[in-house]
Amino acid sequence: MAEKARLSLNQITLSSWSVSQAVEGCVRHGIPSIALWRHKIAEAGLASCVRAVQNAGLHVSSVCRGGMFPALTAAGRQENLEDNFRAVDEAAALQADSLVLVVGGSAEVGLMDARKMVEEGIAALVPYARQCGVKLGLEPLHPMYAAERSVLNTIEQALELASAYGPQEVGLVLDVFHIWWDPQVLPLIAKCAGRIYGFHVNDWLVPLPDLLLGRGMMGDGVIDNRMLRLAVDRAGYAGPIEVEIFNRILWDSDPDQVLRQMIDRFTTLV
Amino acid sequence: MAEKARLSLNQITLSSWSVSQAVEGCVRHGIPSIALWRHKIAEAGLASCVRAVQNAGLHVSSVCRGGMFPALTAAGRQENLEDNFRAVDEAAALQADSLVLVVGGSAEVGLMDARKMVEEGIAALVPYARQCGVKLGLEPLHPMYAAERSVLNTIEQALELASAYGPQEVGLVLDVFHIWWDPQVLPLIAKCAGRIYGFHVNDWLVPLPDLLLGRGMMGDGVIDNRMLRLAVDRAGYAGPIEVEIFNRILWDSDPDQVLRQMIDRFTTLV
Repeated sequence: MAEKARLSLNQITLSSWSVSQAVEGCVRHGIPSIALWRHKIAEAGLASCVRAVQNAGLHVSSVCRGGMFPALTAAGRQENLEDNFRAVDEAAALQADSLVLVVGGSAEVGLMDARKMVEEGIAALVPYARQCGVKLGLEPLHPMYAAERSVLNTIEQALELASAYGPQEVGLVLDVFHIWWDPQVLPLIAKCAGRIYGFHVNDWLVPLPDLLLGRGMMGDGVIDNRMLRLAVDRAGYAGPIEVEIFNRILWDSDPDQVLRQMIDRFTTLV
Repeated sequence: MAEKARLSLNQITLSSWSVSQAVEGCVRHGIPSIALWRHKIAEAGLASCVRAVQNAGLHVSSVCRGGMFPALTAAGRQENLEDNFRAVDEAAALQADSLVLVVGGSAEVGLMDARKMVEEGIAALVPYARQCGVKLGLEPLHPMYAAERSVLNTIEQALELASAYGPQEVGLVLDVFHIWWDPQVLPLIAKCAGRIYGFHVNDWLVPLPDLLLGRGMMGDGVIDNRMLRLAVDRAGYAGPIEVEIFNRILWDSDPDQVLRQMIDRFTTLV
């Protein structure tokens, strides 16, 4: 059973809450870590977020998210890169374990070129992140997002990208929703040893209600969260485990009720 | 440019048509090959389908489909296997290049066990298929179908399964919709040399309108059909290329209009 001490609320799970509401929710329910989203940080102001998590004694498991490197023009790519510098600044100020990178994709750019742009974008970002002491966590996204959100689609591909940098510079954030189907998932997780920066749990609902908003609470779908958590543990990861769920029904539910269910499912099923 | 001589109409692309209507459509539009679906074969009767394709001088590129091996009980798996024997009979009678296997999946069974059942199901099917002279074409399906329709999700995984058998017994059917995102798609296609039994073209629409019925006509999405066709050619495949599109809008369109567009897109974009 996963210990509650490892639980982190990824803020998107309770999308209606502001940063301060999410922080207060964590305190109220004894959740020790939180992951913040940049649009929520922007709403509250960075300094206010830093104070909120510090006053609450919360650990920040990640900032979501940098990335989104590809663009048709060099100017567009430069703009994307600048935004990543600001994301690094935020992760540094919040002392987050890592900045999660969802690398982006684009129907206009095309898959092959987008993958090159991602490689170049990371290369341009690493020196600044290193200087700020921020780890970059590559999150491979499910292959069904390859056309638009992320051209980084397997653990193997992410490991290859990361291996160009030091194990304290670029690593992986593993989300069960994106990796559970991989026929090589267990050996690949083992190969990630030393580069796992984060781990996300949730579930794959059957049938999948929606490409984006159809993720479920652990236990409501087909993913063996326990098996994957143990594999990540065996690979040496002992950090926070984020619950990250994009689901319209959860978003419309009472947040405290969602948190109670989340803690229950986490401690019994993960 | 792909030659029209390699074009095969996968019957599902014009879902409203019976076998005889599809056969007549192919003759009318000079399409030399056809792939038949078993529910349509059942509607028309096998003997009548055999006569129809023979009289029309059509080549049958595949029968769709066998597979669907996993089930909770041994009796259920045996029933599935028996159905596969009938599918082999149909492919033999139609002299199809291969019987396409969509291997199945099941939320109740779970991913790991389902994969074992698929391995066992294929092992039980091969001797009968060999005896009937029918090649079994494993079709890896997109990872987004892993929970329900197919636990076979990558070319690599399919190659490994196939390699337990002779290259004339078990091979792969490659569909661009299912494989285009794979970071290793080009080297993996090269590794399939000698075991490619079929190749399907269509497109991935952006945004994807539906998990099942959202495929598009070549040129309407983001897949580089030409690049993948050339890779398949380089791997030594010179057989028919099926256009297989599950799309509600196409199904509701005038079939002859769809065929004209299909031929145009095939000869200019594939």
